[in-house]
Amino acid sequence: MTRPLSRALVAEFLGSLLLAALVIGSGIAAQRLSPHDVGVQLLENAAATAVGLFALILVFGPVSGAHFNPVVSLVDAVLGGLPWRHFSLYVPVQVIGCVAGAVVANVLFDATPISISTTDRASWPHGFSEVVATLGLLLVIFSLARTGRGEKAAAAVGAYIGAAYWFTSSTSFANPAITVGRAFSDSFAGIAPSSVPTYIVAQLVAAVIALPLLRLLYPSARSEDVVVPNPV
Amino acid sequence: MTRPLSRALVAEFLGSLLLAALVIGSGIAAQRLSPHDVGVQLLENAAATAVGLFALILVFGPVSGAHFNPVVSLVDAVLGGLPWRHFSLYVPVQVIGCVAGAVVANVLFDATPISISTTDRASWPHGFSEVVATLGLLLVIFSLARTGRGEKAAAAVGAYIGAAYWFTSSTSFANPAITVGRAFSDSFAGIAPSSVPTYIVAQLVAAVIALPLLRLLYPSARSEDVVVPNPV
Amino acid sequence: MTRPLSRALVAEFLGSLLLAALVIGSGIAAQRLSPHDVGVQLLENAAATAVGLFALILVFGPVSGAHFNPVVSLVDAVLGGLPWRHFSLYVPVQVIGCVAGAVVANVLFDATPISISTTDRASWPHGFSEVVATLGLLLVIFSLARTGRGEKAAAAVGAYIGAAYWFTSSTSFANPAITVGRAFSDSFAGIAPSSVPTYIVAQLVAAVIALPLLRLLYPSARSEDVVVPNPV
Amino acid sequence: MTRPLSRALVAEFLGSLLLAALVIGSGIAAQRLSPHDVGVQLLENAAATAVGLFALILVFGPVSGAHFNPVVSLVDAVLGGLPWRHFSLYVPVQVIGCVAGAVVANVLFDATPISISTTDRASWPHGFSEVVATLGLLLVIFSLARTGRGEKAAAAVGAYIGAAYWFTSSTSFANPAITVGRAFSDSFAGIAPSSVPTYIVAQLVAAVIALPLLRLLYPSARSEDVVVPNPV
Repeated sequence: MTRPLSRALVAEFLGSLLLAALVIGSGIAAQRLSPHDVGVQLLENAAATAVGLFALILVFGPVSGAHFNPVVSLVDAVLGGLPWRHFSLYVPVQVIGCVAGAVVANVLFDATPISISTTDRASWPHGFSEVVATLGLLLVIFSLARTGRGEKAAAAVGAYIGAAYWFTSSTSFANPAITVGRAFSDSFAGIAPSSVPTYIVAQLVAAVIALPLLRLLYPSARSEDVVVPNPV
Repeated sequence: MTRPLSRALVAEFLGSLLLAALVIGSGIAAQRLSPHDVGVQLLENAAATAVGLFALILVFGPVSGAHFNPVVSLVDAVLGGLPWRHFSLYVPVQVIGCVAGAVVANVLFDATPISISTTDRASWPHGFSEVVATLGLLLVIFSLARTGRGEKAAAAVGAYIGAAYWFTSSTSFANPAITVGRAFSDSFAGIAPSSVPTYIVAQLVAAVIALPLLRLLYPSARSEDVVVPNPV
Repeated sequence: MTRPLSRALVAEFLGSLLLAALVIGSGIAAQRLSPHDVGVQLLENAAATAVGLFALILVFGPVSGAHFNPVVSLVDAVLGGLPWRHFSLYVPVQVIGCVAGAVVANVLFDATPISISTTDRASWPHGFSEVVATLGLLLVIFSLARTGRGEKAAAAVGAYIGAAYWFTSSTSFANPAITVGRAFSDSFAGIAPSSVPTYIVAQLVAAVIALPLLRLLYPSARSEDVVVPNPV
Repeated sequence: MTRPLSRALVAEFLGSLLLAALVIGSGIAAQRLSPHDVGVQLLENAAATAVGLFALILVFGPVSGAHFNPVVSLVDAVLGGLPWRHFSLYVPVQVIGCVAGAVVANVLFDATPISISTTDRASWPHGFSEVVATLGLLLVIFSLARTGRGEKAAAAVGAYIGAAYWFTSSTSFANPAITVGRAFSDSFAGIAPSSVPTYIVAQLVAAVIALPLLRLLYPSARSEDVVVPNPV
């Protein structure tokens, strides 16, 4: 394992951990502080996630590409940006990072460190929502990468996710690692383990749809230069 | 039909679809989750629209100019940026895309796929609001295009629309395609078919006012290079 | 009068009109739609103002500098950026534009076109608030102008005003023209005519404090190149 | 004392003062205007802080680096960016500035100028929150500085703090100077003096963790050029 890859894995782990702590922690705070209006809870959760994600992508982007998301890494690998060997290491690190982040969020708010969510989310509208949400996320990331505008990814992804929390009924997880992590917090942003497979299948379906679409719309591939820029 | 034009039409279709799904879907979510305060519903709807629109323009801008809006395409054609033959194809694709997006939004939220809105919006203040809102939108887009600052259009348009939801009584549709699309969802962001012509006429009036104003304020036309940049 | 100056005056008039319509119109909408929570009204008003101001400065910046504000024009003139003859024309145009914008806002929301505000705001905390708010605004604008970062002014001013609505008790008018304009709408953002002089004096005091501070902190003056860039 | 250092100290004093006035003032406004929902109060406080901090860093960045924070100055000094002699002057100026800002906030809102907070915040979850929040802040600032992206710091820090208000139970003070300043206002953003030491210790622990992490992830140090750019 070369030195830059180990740095990239540290970045993916820390970034995934902080992403899960951000998503779940802000959900717990919103639920506790605004008990009378679920919409206001989602507004608080979405706003915090959007601006926090912007910051996290800026922090870890130059080290690992700031994927924090197995579907993003998968599409990047298929398009030739991420070596498959790196992919095989990115994914478990992302999942472990998100689970660790869920525990951190629970502890930050003095909740039981590991509590399994009981929020059932498996339904056709939710599954369809995850397909649309993830497809949109992949379009955002790889349209920028394949047109030499990778430095706009942090703002674009944060903004997109903030919107997708609202225009989908699933509140747009769009990420298998965070889907698994959210199962470990019985709070606003949680998901019951029995609903997790539905979400992950939907997210993978989005990747299958995204690939030909990206090749059609942005034929000149430059993703390897941008999504995983030269390590520091 | 050249290859880049067909790609541009795919981009206009997908972008218009996602724009309508964003506007209508976030309206449905806001209405359901914040039932006690219409202002909070509009805040949620406006915030999601603003940041989502920013992302959508970044995604599709390099392929089609990311118009999603017949009035924008019309002004661009009159100013020499968009060939009239392209204009004649952009407009139906934008309208069909927005109608499809309304259906997608309904399905995402488990509502009847096609439900005709019953929200009557035809009034003089609403019509005047659409003139002002659309005029402002055209100033934002073409002032940037004609002064070589097209890469700021995504942020500026998202921000402008987020504000215009609030400073007009019509909540700023400012787009004939989305006006038609919104008729196909009987929800927060909907509009009764009988009110649609009033809105579209007002939006066209704005184009008539905008054209001489743009030529006066920004005499050196460079719009063709910026609003429809070289296709990828 | 040279051609570019007449264009600049059109830009200052239209921009001041739209700014007043934005501030007052979003205030009317907030007051009507969120009747139960004045804080939510201010949040809606501040968010719309911040993002709308960002767009308006982008639109009119290259034509007139996008001042919309006599105190900004005054400091620019003292620092050598704006010719005094232009200053003497900018100020009345800004005031007339803001009054026109108040009328437009009233009409957009089907209120009496000209209604004089009855909101008394003259108090020591409000006056002190206007000094602090205006001083901060001048620091934002001229720190950027004098360090060659004028293209960040749109985002910085929008963000600053959005914050200043909250950290002052006067909700940060920070602008004599908009202060006069707001007197012409008896709504959320209004101000009784009897309170107007207090606000304007406070805003001028801020200019007196800002000038030596700006010269101390940013000694190399380049403001003429940035705040009023070469007309289009 | 060279001329640029004295300018930097004026900038740190004014910036720290305005930061404290922003944080505490917007907290007082939120508490008064939205009495029924603590979550909405925090949303208002966080949004104002995020966009205001963005503006303040733009204003004072070129003069002093816009630290306003002893922990940031400490890490900058250890990494070689800030001379230790400057550090020894920055810290007291930051603390005095934040206390002055608390008094200004109280006066702006017609409260007792100096009121000692009675909000007890010392608990393990709050302490752990301050470690995580401060660590994240240091990662944001120094990842950008060490990779030549310092001009993104204003947006990134504002966004990060806005998120951290939500994903920590302490609402992310992340700054010993503002922690001391907040003790001088018995309002929404206040902290009882007895809780101050816990917060400051936690913030220093974050610095100890951040230093090896920053050296591992961003080995090529360029911080001196970016965090304290050439004085104007």
